[in-house]
Amino acid sequence: MGAVLKRALVGSRGKYLAFSVGFNKICTSRCQKQPQTLKNLSPNYPLAAVRENPDLNSFVFRTHTCGELRAVHIGQEVTLCGWVQYRRQDLFIVLRDFDGLIQIILPQEETAAQLKKILCDISLESVITVTGTVISRPSGQANPNMVTGEIEVRVQSAEVLNSSRKLPFETKELVKKSEALRMRYRYLDLRSSQLQYNLRLRSRMVMRMREYLCNLHGFVDVETPTLFKRTPGGAKEFVVPSREPGKFYSLPQSPQQFKQLLMVGGLDRYFQVARCYRDEGSKPDRQPEFTQIDIEMSFVNQASIQKLIEGLIEYSWPEEKGTITLPFPSITYAEAMGSYGVDKPDTRFGMKITDVSEVFRDADVSFLRDALGQPCGVVRSISVPKGAYLKKKDLENLRELAKTQFNQCNVLFPFPKNAALGKLRLECATILESKGVALRDHNAFNFLWVVDFPLFLPKEGNPEELESAHHPFTAPHPEDAYLMCTEPQKVRSQHYDLVLNGNEIGGGSIRIHDMELQHYVLETVLKEDTGLLLHLLEALDSGAPPHGGIALGLDRLIALTVGASSIRDVIAFPKSFRGRDLMSNAPDLVSPEELSTYHIQVSQPAGSGEDTTQS
Amino acid sequence: MGAVLKRALVGSRGKYLAFSVGFNKICTSRCQKQPQTLKNLSPNYPLAAVRENPDLNSFVFRTHTCGELRAVHIGQEVTLCGWVQYRRQDLFIVLRDFDGLIQIILPQEETAAQLKKILCDISLESVITVTGTVISRPSGQANPNMVTGEIEVRVQSAEVLNSSRKLPFETKELVKKSEALRMRYRYLDLRSSQLQYNLRLRSRMVMRMREYLCNLHGFVDVETPTLFKRTPGGAKEFVVPSREPGKFYSLPQSPQQFKQLLMVGGLDRYFQVARCYRDEGSKPDRQPEFTQIDIEMSFVNQASIQKLIEGLIEYSWPEEKGTITLPFPSITYAEAMGSYGVDKPDTRFGMKITDVSEVFRDADVSFLRDALGQPCGVVRSISVPKGAYLKKKDLENLRELAKTQFNQCNVLFPFPKNAALGKLRLECATILESKGVALRDHNAFNFLWVVDFPLFLPKEGNPEELESAHHPFTAPHPEDAYLMCTEPQKVRSQHYDLVLNGNEIGGGSIRIHDMELQHYVLETVLKEDTGLLLHLLEALDSGAPPHGGIALGLDRLIALTVGASSIRDVIAFPKSFRGRDLMSNAPDLVSPEELSTYHIQVSQPAGSGEDTTQS
Repeated sequence: MGAVLKRALVGSRGKYLAFSVGFNKICTSRCQKQPQTLKNLSPNYPLAAVRENPDLNSFVFRTHTCGELRAVHIGQEVTLCGWVQYRRQDLFIVLRDFDGLIQIILPQEETAAQLKKILCDISLESVITVTGTVISRPSGQANPNMVTGEIEVRVQSAEVLNSSRKLPFETKELVKKSEALRMRYRYLDLRSSQLQYNLRLRSRMVMRMREYLCNLHGFVDVETPTLFKRTPGGAKEFVVPSREPGKFYSLPQSPQQFKQLLMVGGLDRYFQVARCYRDEGSKPDRQPEFTQIDIEMSFVNQASIQKLIEGLIEYSWPEEKGTITLPFPSITYAEAMGSYGVDKPDTRFGMKITDVSEVFRDADVSFLRDALGQPCGVVRSISVPKGAYLKKKDLENLRELAKTQFNQCNVLFPFPKNAALGKLRLECATILESKGVALRDHNAFNFLWVVDFPLFLPKEGNPEELESAHHPFTAPHPEDAYLMCTEPQKVRSQHYDLVLNGNEIGGGSIRIHDMELQHYVLETVLKEDTGLLLHLLEALDSGAPPHGGIALGLDRLIALTVGASSIRDVIAFPKSFRGRDLMSNAPDLVSPEELSTYHIQVSQPAGSGEDTTQS
Repeated sequence: MGAVLKRALVGSRGKYLAFSVGFNKICTSRCQKQPQTLKNLSPNYPLAAVRENPDLNSFVFRTHTCGELRAVHIGQEVTLCGWVQYRRQDLFIVLRDFDGLIQIILPQEETAAQLKKILCDISLESVITVTGTVISRPSGQANPNMVTGEIEVRVQSAEVLNSSRKLPFETKELVKKSEALRMRYRYLDLRSSQLQYNLRLRSRMVMRMREYLCNLHGFVDVETPTLFKRTPGGAKEFVVPSREPGKFYSLPQSPQQFKQLLMVGGLDRYFQVARCYRDEGSKPDRQPEFTQIDIEMSFVNQASIQKLIEGLIEYSWPEEKGTITLPFPSITYAEAMGSYGVDKPDTRFGMKITDVSEVFRDADVSFLRDALGQPCGVVRSISVPKGAYLKKKDLENLRELAKTQFNQCNVLFPFPKNAALGKLRLECATILESKGVALRDHNAFNFLWVVDFPLFLPKEGNPEELESAHHPFTAPHPEDAYLMCTEPQKVRSQHYDLVLNGNEIGGGSIRIHDMELQHYVLETVLKEDTGLLLHLLEALDSGAPPHGGIALGLDRLIALTVGASSIRDVIAFPKSFRGRDLMSNAPDLVSPEELSTYHIQVSQPAGSGEDTTQS
């Protein structure tokens, strides 16, 4: 268990009454310990004073956690509950709980032979409770690598609360096993100090965000439905059959419509830690359900929302990850594409894209001359530091990557060639780092705003038509509003993305609050069926205040904060990249009878002979 | 807007820079007001001190809310944003925001004619911003019914941020309209002071619960999946088709399995404000999705969880609803059924069920003599105070109710006759109250624990077999454990319900943590397919700590707290009793092409000719 978690969780606790041990596996009502009284908690109790120091022993059988014992406890009788991590020579047991490890000394006296036998016979990962006295370790035997290493507990009584079967692997080794095995036995994986740290840090950061939004700034936590109507173009929305024949709910990708309707309803400032759903098939490091910090405000502009979010990140940022500097730098979409070839630049290293046309204007290199001879022809480059580390094979791979990218990057209109250079830049960084070149500081947290996105993009597959760059509710940039009717493709938006170390961790916008403008965008520009959004248009026409908001991708933010390589490491029960729960084996077959309640039946893919009934 | 909300939301605010007004409907980036600096918010900032006093004006165009202005603001220049609630004689406008109402005085000078015209022309419910000076109302014109009634704002500049169409009804009248209309225009209904109060109180109470659990007692807020595997007997679970042919996720009714697995994973103390799903068709005052405060702890017994919850309720209880007394009274299931004929007694009034067999032992009334002549025959009664209020028609109705109930109450084994009396008791109370008899105190909050439920009940429809009274993971009562193998139908459980004024608002239990006992219950007693719960059985066999928990029904708790007659009044976007969203018209048709992604097709009910394609 990391020292960081220790610092976060360990603190001084009150005194507790000891309790007698006489447990049996069915009876759990014999705990005579008194829970701490709450009488002194008046409404004005200074929460912040205890926030970093919650009472982890209230209401339970133990008097202390394993990880909190120190030399100051020497002489105290303590009761601990935990898992048998390790046993040596019938002399001691290392007991583990979520808070850490403690060494338990077994009794060697003849009179305690039975107690000793019990503790020597139990399997690893069994759950026991022990009562004993905290003593100093003999001189010279302190373990400086263990935060409880100065002391040990001489056991007086103990009981096995539950025995564990012989596990197919040691819990502490699970982290090195395949991810599929870890997910199959997630309840064992969760015992690791790393996952305990990740989930507890996540809980702590979200709580701080709530304090900032709710207690400091008067936001209202409003829960919005997840059984909703299919949105236009909502191809990635899961459907949920209802008992009305042929009618389906959808699981929405975000509470976008609801949060705007809350603003129309005068809620003024809304937030929600919102569960969202997106069916993306098998995309790497995505989850079919994910969580976003969802925020919306009335009477606000883009700069204010950015300031709100900077304050939110600063307020919830874990101390042990260092300080972050406000305000976050901001660049435009055009600058990002121009200098980094991507709309979420990793600014932890340079290697920016540079125009070198003039350098090569008179060079006698045919392919450069050809390029520069074309109308608007340019030559751009990235300069790779320590390029000598790139071997011939690396260069060949990069050349191959470049070729592929040049033909694929048309989505990042109007910067297709730069997008290819942007990919090369990241690939070069990865190759160089694999060869030991220090390029990106893995302890740095480079937050960055990207602003002034285009409002519309040419439709993929049909570039004559336009589609929303983000969503149809985004307001146009005020400086470009005059172009809406004549050249909508040139209009920038009031959308903003928050980027951390090259990852998009949030995005939002000022919304359209004018019904006529919204109708124009939907019907004339996007050629959408406005009937599906009639309720929203009616709402905008009923006194909608100017409003805007943002959503932060919580899973990604936490993963980057703790340095996890996947969001699966910050989710208690993640699904595999194919969307399966490997522990319970979901999704699973459902009988035709059960489906008939919902008036649906399974239609087999052509040629499939699989039996889909629950046999 | 109620005085209570005022007290909760209004407080002293900091000073703000004024800002110039020059708004247009697309441009919202011209706000020059500086958001409050957050520099002074160190990690030790005393949150509690500001909790009741959040800054409602940070980051936005206004300097003050409409509802917060008082005589102390006289002479200040303020900028307000809000909705036009009312206009009279081209003299003043009443402006409304979520925080209250304020009177705006229109300029009467010739030089301000244009400003006056704008404000006189706009429709009600339009959104405006005004800048002006707070002045005292002329002597004798203060309005004591308005918390801002001593003052008014003389407008200097104003702008229409968005105009409203003429609404089909006045917003303030909506509350008197049909519920269907209110739900169709939910975004207007949300502007009512009652719904604003309900949603804000809900947010505040949940935040207090989080502080108690997370900050005071070290609970970890863990999010669990809602796309999960179908549970045995999960007939009320919505299904979600996946991209794997014939395979479905389920939306679980609670995170029960996950919270137990978290305990096996050593999380120690878990909570979540959990979204749950239950497809109950058209039950009154139920919602297809609902929210529970979900809690689980390791190394705990029943009494400790009850104490934890009592502390939680006390800590989060809104001041304006009076104090509640701890500990909550507790009665057994047998006592509840015996005295009240129901397992969730409303203890705000008497009329308990009494055994009057002895009184009638020698009475010459044939039906009584027949009853007492049978083996174990008894005569029970309820004594109705002020029974003279019951007219002949009332008595006939009660007699009819009794007849029906006697044949329906077999589910409440082993107290079928008392259940009928329990219904009569509640019906009598309703009749008496409708005639003006004061019986139940509508300002009283009678919390009550009901304990010692039976572990199993005879299966409905097949009373030879047993089913779980609550769920198969509930641990038996230690005193009855010896009966598990011989007479399981006699075993009481370690289940407990929390009841408020006759409504169940929570339930929980100590869980089975022993794999063999769990296997015995599932396979031998309940005859379930253990294969579906193999992961849970394996987890219990891998070092599961003793554990237990509880879930509180948040919607119901908040509804009872605010005195709402339906949970729909404490949910921002509720569904109708048929599960429809009347605003967006969900659920809706989905095209066969979209369904083909999920390998399903609609099967029409026999005889139906309805076209189910999206036409």
